[in-house]
Amino acid sequence: MENFETIGGGICAAKGFKASGLYCGIKHGLPDGNESPVKNKNDIAMIFADVECSAAGVYTSNKVKGAPVIVTKSNLVKSGGKARAVIVNSGNANTCNADGEEKALEMCRLTAEQLNIPAEQVIVASTGVIGLTLPIEPVRYAVPLLAEKLSYEGNAQAATAIMTTDTVKKEYAVKFTVDGKECHLGGMAKGSGMIHPNMATTLNFITTDCAVSPEMLQKALSEIVKITYNCLSVDGDQSTNDTCMLIASGLAGNTEIAAENGDYETFKNALYQVMKNLTIMLAKDGEGATKLITCVCSSAPDLDTAIIVAKSVIRSPLVKTMIYGEDANCGRIACAVGYAETDNIDVNKLDIFLASRAGKIQTYKNGLNMDFSEEKAAKILKEDEIEILIELNSGTVSATAWGCDLTYDYVKINGDYRS
Amino acid sequence: MENFETIGGGICAAKGFKASGLYCGIKHGLPDGNESPVKNKNDIAMIFADVECSAAGVYTSNKVKGAPVIVTKSNLVKSGGKARAVIVNSGNANTCNADGEEKALEMCRLTAEQLNIPAEQVIVASTGVIGLTLPIEPVRYAVPLLAEKLSYEGNAQAATAIMTTDTVKKEYAVKFTVDGKECHLGGMAKGSGMIHPNMATTLNFITTDCAVSPEMLQKALSEIVKITYNCLSVDGDQSTNDTCMLIASGLAGNTEIAAENGDYETFKNALYQVMKNLTIMLAKDGEGATKLITCVCSSAPDLDTAIIVAKSVIRSPLVKTMIYGEDANCGRIACAVGYAETDNIDVNKLDIFLASRAGKIQTYKNGLNMDFSEEKAAKILKEDEIEILIELNSGTVSATAWGCDLTYDYVKINGDYRS
Repeated sequence: MENFETIGGGICAAKGFKASGLYCGIKHGLPDGNESPVKNKNDIAMIFADVECSAAGVYTSNKVKGAPVIVTKSNLVKSGGKARAVIVNSGNANTCNADGEEKALEMCRLTAEQLNIPAEQVIVASTGVIGLTLPIEPVRYAVPLLAEKLSYEGNAQAATAIMTTDTVKKEYAVKFTVDGKECHLGGMAKGSGMIHPNMATTLNFITTDCAVSPEMLQKALSEIVKITYNCLSVDGDQSTNDTCMLIASGLAGNTEIAAENGDYETFKNALYQVMKNLTIMLAKDGEGATKLITCVCSSAPDLDTAIIVAKSVIRSPLVKTMIYGEDANCGRIACAVGYAETDNIDVNKLDIFLASRAGKIQTYKNGLNMDFSEEKAAKILKEDEIEILIELNSGTVSATAWGCDLTYDYVKINGDYRS
Repeated sequence: MENFETIGGGICAAKGFKASGLYCGIKHGLPDGNESPVKNKNDIAMIFADVECSAAGVYTSNKVKGAPVIVTKSNLVKSGGKARAVIVNSGNANTCNADGEEKALEMCRLTAEQLNIPAEQVIVASTGVIGLTLPIEPVRYAVPLLAEKLSYEGNAQAATAIMTTDTVKKEYAVKFTVDGKECHLGGMAKGSGMIHPNMATTLNFITTDCAVSPEMLQKALSEIVKITYNCLSVDGDQSTNDTCMLIASGLAGNTEIAAENGDYETFKNALYQVMKNLTIMLAKDGEGATKLITCVCSSAPDLDTAIIVAKSVIRSPLVKTMIYGEDANCGRIACAVGYAETDNIDVNKLDIFLASRAGKIQTYKNGLNMDFSEEKAAKILKEDEIEILIELNSGTVSATAWGCDLTYDYVKINGDYRS
């Protein structure tokens, strides 16, 4: 039996984490009492830990970085990797603005004063339009109210606040046992476009009560980001504000995990479960998506090759449109394998399969198209969760990448995003 | 005055080249007399040179290569870089098929026999669906008729035959003077999806009567491909069949260009004019395109950096959709510059401008968003040819990349391509 169990609670699943969220009008101006619950959804959230936590982060590798990314990184250096609170808004990325860092620091200062903690223990993040001055008034209005609303059940309020074009909030949590103690780990994430990361994806916050040393926390996060968020592609654009934070309170009472032992493996697996499931939620809710696509590259000579091939296929616009059109035009898959940036594949050994709840068929063998039942393929592609299975027949390693189809609605959503 | 003038004639503009094209039913079966001129457009073409020519080629770098690419490369090795004829079909890529090479060789053999030339002097190319057995009967039917129809005015017939989802045929030709002799150079190309090459783009055939040594021919082609076809992106997919052939008859009577002298520069400029204009035609006719996007990256430290940045912007789906939506959301442009794969840029020096026939405005300065007139931006973006101007302010080198917007119709065209 695997040592984890899915539970509710999102970022409040772990002991010692309160959260809150509300609408403060980042995009549309301060609330005037006439807000609609649908249009004026929460746009700012706070997380507050009962105790000082260890924090690990993975950030965008885009050279144009959001001011909050710069401030958060600098805060964590100043605090020695310790954090107590998160303040995060949607509706404005606070990026490419002359006063960006000033505003991000102000968000930290306001939060720190309200919660009576050092400003460098505040993690700040923003998501939304790039290159639009962030209005600070809504933040000033929100911070005292957020502090007041903080609760151990506030996870959904917060998860809603970080949504932009997302159609559903994304939360996932598990419990597991380390050193005889029950531990919890849960997270929230936002999508749903500008997703094809080299370092992280969008905004993600993960909390745990498991005691883990800062080094092991960072190591686990980096390893798991590589095989989850980094294997997700909606559209091939990489955001300026990608931030993935992992914060550990240690309140589960286990002996701190400080080496790559069995406990570390258990912790890492719990982290993988949460991040993998958030990744799948992000892919499913990709802008305009009607189908989840999972591409598994197997029998690869090594992990990097498997990842590169799976990502090349999941990123291809022609594969994405063929899945949307439910057309088993698998030459496009072979083509995307062929231009994957690796020299470790032999296309003459390439096998391709399509699968879903409705069944599985092989369409390519040894790099060549096979005669297959178009009827069966059509039945498989009618489902809303499609698997593309690539066999390289050159080793024993596998990797998975997740994405979604490319639809009219992606174009619609992104043709007029700012309004 | 520049030493070139635009003329008509496409691949027949140069002395010594005949061409023909017709419908033979590659996709829908042999003609039965009830063909519609619109639906059953030409699908096979022949080019035949009066004399033995030098040939240079640039091919896809996709590891999954079409059988015609493999056969053409091998033919040119066997013939010592000499060619007399081209046979090319649309409607089927003859790629990933067990009998692909056999069929491609058969196309060469049929053509060679008909024209009474060695089979290794035939260049073969195919474009269309990947992984579908190529029917040879339509080719057998077509070859004698193509030979019969060969004419010095057959360029348009041939240019039509290589179209797939293209909505217009693409031809361009120039005349220029080398060594006191009037020379001609003309080409034809096909688009219009699966375009984001590392080596070449789709199918292109260029003929010239200028006498050029095989080495200089290859050198010029490789240099110009880098700054034209390789700077074109419709969708980020790279085809398995990309082939760009340059064939020189030498019939203009000039002293053969055999070194990098002034004549070489004149020849290279003529080649650039033809390939640049074909590139622009390909971008304009990108699948579903409503707008041509030209991205010029200037004041770069070197050519590679300028190309990488311009291509990163032109490839971004979010930039493409913003142009489609006529929304001056220039943070997306800054974002795409930021994730360009180069370390030679300083994003704090980045300036961005939007321009079209309707005017020009600056939207970013020193990496920061500027206050600009949304009204003026809207007017600029209403046009159907949009320029995105990137200034890196770090050097003196420029490069241009071409592309188109991403629209509903791209999704529509590619959701159901095979039928």
